[in-house]
Amino acid sequence: MENQESDQPSSRPWLEIEQLAAAGAWADVRLRLQRMPEADRSYAASHLDTDVLADILEALRREDAADLLDWLPEVQAAHALDEIDPHAAAEILDQMASDDQVDLLARMEGSEAVLADLAPESADEVRRLLSYAPESAGGLMASEVFTVEEGVNVAAVVAQIREHPTFSTFAIQYIFVVSATGVLRGVLQLRSLIVSQPTTPIDALMIADPLSVSTDASLEELEELFDTYAFLGAPVVDDQGLLRGIVHRSAVEEALAESAQSDHMKSLGLAREELRSMPVWFRARRRLSWLSVNVVLNMVAASVIAAYQETLEAAIALAIFLPMISDMSGCSGNQAVAVSMRELSLGILRPNEALRVWGQEISLGLINGLALGVLIGTVAFLWQGSAALGVVVGGALAINTMVAVSIGGVIPLLLRRAGQDPALASGPVLTTITDMCGFFLALSFATLALERL
Amino acid sequence: MENQESDQPSSRPWLEIEQLAAAGAWADVRLRLQRMPEADRSYAASHLDTDVLADILEALRREDAADLLDWLPEVQAAHALDEIDPHAAAEILDQMASDDQVDLLARMEGSEAVLADLAPESADEVRRLLSYAPESAGGLMASEVFTVEEGVNVAAVVAQIREHPTFSTFAIQYIFVVSATGVLRGVLQLRSLIVSQPTTPIDALMIADPLSVSTDASLEELEELFDTYAFLGAPVVDDQGLLRGIVHRSAVEEALAESAQSDHMKSLGLAREELRSMPVWFRARRRLSWLSVNVVLNMVAASVIAAYQETLEAAIALAIFLPMISDMSGCSGNQAVAVSMRELSLGILRPNEALRVWGQEISLGLINGLALGVLIGTVAFLWQGSAALGVVVGGALAINTMVAVSIGGVIPLLLRRAGQDPALASGPVLTTITDMCGFFLALSFATLALERL
Repeated sequence: MENQESDQPSSRPWLEIEQLAAAGAWADVRLRLQRMPEADRSYAASHLDTDVLADILEALRREDAADLLDWLPEVQAAHALDEIDPHAAAEILDQMASDDQVDLLARMEGSEAVLADLAPESADEVRRLLSYAPESAGGLMASEVFTVEEGVNVAAVVAQIREHPTFSTFAIQYIFVVSATGVLRGVLQLRSLIVSQPTTPIDALMIADPLSVSTDASLEELEELFDTYAFLGAPVVDDQGLLRGIVHRSAVEEALAESAQSDHMKSLGLAREELRSMPVWFRARRRLSWLSVNVVLNMVAASVIAAYQETLEAAIALAIFLPMISDMSGCSGNQAVAVSMRELSLGILRPNEALRVWGQEISLGLINGLALGVLIGTVAFLWQGSAALGVVVGGALAINTMVAVSIGGVIPLLLRRAGQDPALASGPVLTTITDMCGFFLALSFATLALERL
Repeated sequence: MENQESDQPSSRPWLEIEQLAAAGAWADVRLRLQRMPEADRSYAASHLDTDVLADILEALRREDAADLLDWLPEVQAAHALDEIDPHAAAEILDQMASDDQVDLLARMEGSEAVLADLAPESADEVRRLLSYAPESAGGLMASEVFTVEEGVNVAAVVAQIREHPTFSTFAIQYIFVVSATGVLRGVLQLRSLIVSQPTTPIDALMIADPLSVSTDASLEELEELFDTYAFLGAPVVDDQGLLRGIVHRSAVEEALAESAQSDHMKSLGLAREELRSMPVWFRARRRLSWLSVNVVLNMVAASVIAAYQETLEAAIALAIFLPMISDMSGCSGNQAVAVSMRELSLGILRPNEALRVWGQEISLGLINGLALGVLIGTVAFLWQGSAALGVVVGGALAINTMVAVSIGGVIPLLLRRAGQDPALASGPVLTTITDMCGFFLALSFATLALERL
């Protein structure tokens, strides 16, 4: 069966794994996974039922189980580990680098039971790593670093490299020089080892007092550091100057990408890590809590329409255009929000520049407002045959576009100044304001022009 | 003035630069920029008027001008280079690495004039790099690599490293082994140089036939490569197997982040690189072309309301709730779109799974639809005192939420299958469908219950 299947790629590669697992053919499960193309592996693994996945993890060799977890989104890997015996989970985690252990344990419900089963020194290390904020240098660093003690010579360092079996797995080829107590003293480049005499003391070769970051350096500080310098990694020290690990450029870039992704998910009221494999009630509840807030904001805006019910009754054609005004103003405003968010994140716009942005967006809003107002006014006139309706609808959209664009550009800055997350709140605040304003403009213009409509 | 100002950070650091530039005090401009904190530098540089910026670039030493360009968003740097003498621009570009040169030249209007002024061999190299697609391995690679010819021994390589002044600036410490004609033969790790005897031939040390990517490998292929292997960089070869450059993990990650950012901007109808420093007419036109498409889609949806004008006239309170139904359904649907987009990008969902996703989202839509329908129905009943109105509005929102959630989850998959960009088209397609469907449900229910409303 194995040979037959491996020739024709399956469009549902997890089905076969499930069959093999149900038959208890664990060696075949491992073989099958090993032979899959990389993309199929993560695809198949992510489609396995959590129970089946847990059975497979317990049955596989520990290092194979660790590999399997590596192909899954972290949140799903943590869920699966929660399903298996804590002792087995601890043994699997033991096969991973400290930063990967921490990523999974931070997401597990039963992390305490697993920690109790880890070797004491390893558990202490992981507990310390878990105590750092996930997006700080401490939370992002790898604690495995290659260190030599100050005072030795090149030959001694070369000997240590020879003896260190895992040296080649240290992704960045820096060697850190520390004092006897572990205080960071310098960084040694491999290049200087190569071009130096064996008897040269490393204190003469190392870059002394190298740039380092504190364990609690923020993601923004790390981003700025790696933007400024072409380093692939930076040493992380605690408040006593002790070397604690190395934070890699790639870890910072991954965290930044996740944070951008997470902002987008949060702005739609989604849990950052929602996957369809999660229980439907959990997903529904998370989405619903944000939608309910939106209902309230919508009602605030709709109350403007309710206040003008009589006008609307007398000019029913206006009702066709109210949703359009709401949608178009929202779109125009969201464009301005996105440009401000981008300029904020590029560091070329600061929260105190609200007035300048407002001035710049007013002129753009004027241009686009006039264009859209004329367009929709003409449509309203041709469609409903009423020039007055065209003027009311077009005028309202023109003014409201100007309002939406200028307010949209400024809202992220004001929210940032007020200590709020602009990615989260800009959208709802914007559309509530522009809906209210748009409905008010259209309906009050209509009230003024009532006998002509 | 210099000393006085550098003590008190200015909230508008560019003003001082502009004053110094106006006075022709170029040495002071350079000093002032050098002494600024990094964040202030890019902030100040990005706020300079393009004319002033061009004057400064021409007056500074070429390497300082290159630094200044490095602090700017690429699109602004390219605009500034377009403003100055092509000969000066060529000299400034000469101070940069080939991949940075290409990034700027690709964005310049006057790149041909500048290329004509570059040294012929350098211009040929840049022209070749410009010919690659920007998001391919060829477009992302750095062409500066450190190579040695096969057949030599360790001592010869060490001697070459000693002589090569720029070796330490090669961010990745790989040494590539090539044949006499430049065909990639192997990769040498610095580690193996350190632990080997000087007389060892490198052909015995190198990793032979190393993994490499073709110059036209796509961003997706590169993402998968770096996901699979912990490499910091991969050699890029052309179709004759000649080593052309190295593509760094960081370049791929940056391109992926830019592509995600660009998707978000495009989905709002914004030019990917819109900055407020661009001419207002340019910005307005770009935004407007997308808004106009939205007007048309909105009219399609509004035509449903127009068809039921009589019903609406008889049940005017319904007009209060139509924008709310449109907005709420759009929100619910966009949540499902975002989850599908995320699962697609994680590689755990494939376009052929539309039916499975539809089934999963239907149940979630049912839960949230019932919850929101009851909520808004109760509100409508209490607010307008009509139980029938509550049933009409609540029922329409309940069903339309189910439609929006299930359609929203599926649309990105269908668009991907149809070869369209789901990031671009999902939103407009979704809201047009859910608006039409929501208006139809509410107004046809109201028509049925007309005598009770």
